Amino acid sequence: MSAADDSKRAVGFAAVDRYVRSGMCVGLGTGTTAHWAIERAGERVAAGDALTAVATSHATEALCRERGIPLVPFAGREIDVAIDGADEVAGDWSLTKGGGGALFREKAVALAARTFVVIVTPEKLVKRLGAFRTPVEVVPFAVEYVERAIASAFGAQVVRRGGDPPFLTDNGNAILDCAFGAIGDPAALDGELRGIHGVVATGLFSNDLTDAVLVAEPDGVRELTRRSPR
Amino acid sequence: MSAADDSKRAVGFAAVDRYVRSGMCVGLGTGTTAHWAIERAGERVAAGDALTAVATSHATEALCRERGIPLVPFAGREIDVAIDGADEVAGDWSLTKGGGGALFREKAVALAARTFVVIVTPEKLVKRLGAFRTPVEVVPFAVEYVERAIASAFGAQVVRRGGDPPFLTDNGNAILDCAFGAIGDPAALDGELRGIHGVVATGLFSNDLTDAVLVAEPDGVRELTRRSPR
Repeated sequence: MSAADDSKRAVGFAAVDRYVRSGMCVGLGTGTTAHWAIERAGERVAAGDALTAVATSHATEALCRERGIPLVPFAGREIDVAIDGADEVAGDWSLTKGGGGALFREKAVALAARTFVVIVTPEKLVKRLGAFRTPVEVVPFAVEYVERAIASAFGAQVVRRGGDPPFLTDNGNAILDCAFGAIGDPAALDGELRGIHGVVATGLFSNDLTDAVLVAEPDGVRELTRRSPR
Repeated sequence: MSAADDSKRAVGFAAVDRYVRSGMCVGLGTGTTAHWAIERAGERVAAGDALTAVATSHATEALCRERGIPLVPFAGREIDVAIDGADEVAGDWSLTKGGGGALFREKAVALAARTFVVIVTPEKLVKRLGAFRTPVEVVPFAVEYVERAIASAFGAQVVRRGGDPPFLTDNGNAILDCAFGAIGDPAALDGELRGIHGVVATGLFSNDLTDAVLVAEPDGVRELTRRSPR
């Protein structure tokens, strides 16, 4: 296992060990870091813990099945803790997510969870969001309309996620990856984008969603506090 | 043909005859009144007019094909005039649409059209919107979450459109039919609903979208003016 995988495993395991107790319903994220939280949840189920899970993607659903983690459908009120990765974590704990395309379900699960735990490697910590392109999920019928609307309203470079056929989310929607530059107010930008007819969701997660951030440092897992200097 | 069909035909024909000229791209609506605008557009094409059309639903697309009306994909900037029915037309020309489930595409086409013409029978004219349930299009994954969010935020009775399997829109989404009672500010309510994660679009059309309202009266087609008393 590479050093990068080692540290992703450490932070995924730590999130489950610190935040998940038997009897809980756990929202499980998508991606190479969240992967290790799923593995750990599977070990806990095998060891006898009574866990259920809500999956944020078809891929996570499949992995939960393989690992014997009982799945429950998302209904919005049953999730005790959700654990997921992020593409960027800003100083105020706002996030960019959705590099993997699962932003809609990831946000639904984060919104519904009583506690939302973000697990990342250190290079994901940024001062401000925006170096990573913001994914915007769009109804395919309106994709050209939205592409032009975002480009003209924000002067952003907008690229529809490839390839051939173009990428579709688990909801059957398109993704536009948008370069806004440094984002001053992620919640406001999310609201403006959501106001465009055809936009289903954005990968901008407002900072009030995040309850904990765990970072895989070379010498162990560090849990940020809201005030920790970086 | 019934008297009701007669008057729907009259208003559908009148909209095309008054607003559509050869060379135009026409947005064509969905439903039993818009049906007659499509029929008339087909007659005009057969008579030699150079028309193209953007369809607001799979059903309208199929009818355009049958009638030989050349279709173009929606890209948001090509529509000269859009013609569509409505479920309610308020005194300020705001609308409720989407009884047929095509609200998303209907709104996209209305937003993009240079001129948006609404065609209705007189019983659709109301003082305020809200007697007709407002359709809200929702990503299926989030449907229970949104149902509860709308019920708790607005005290509205919310019913998922049936039956078995439940109705899905042309975008593959669910419809929640919501009873809000009389709606004071349709644009504000639309914005609040759109702010709920999972809501893709609502059937509330803000009054600045509508450019003309044609009403099928027993003695002929009446075109409202913004100030006409009703």
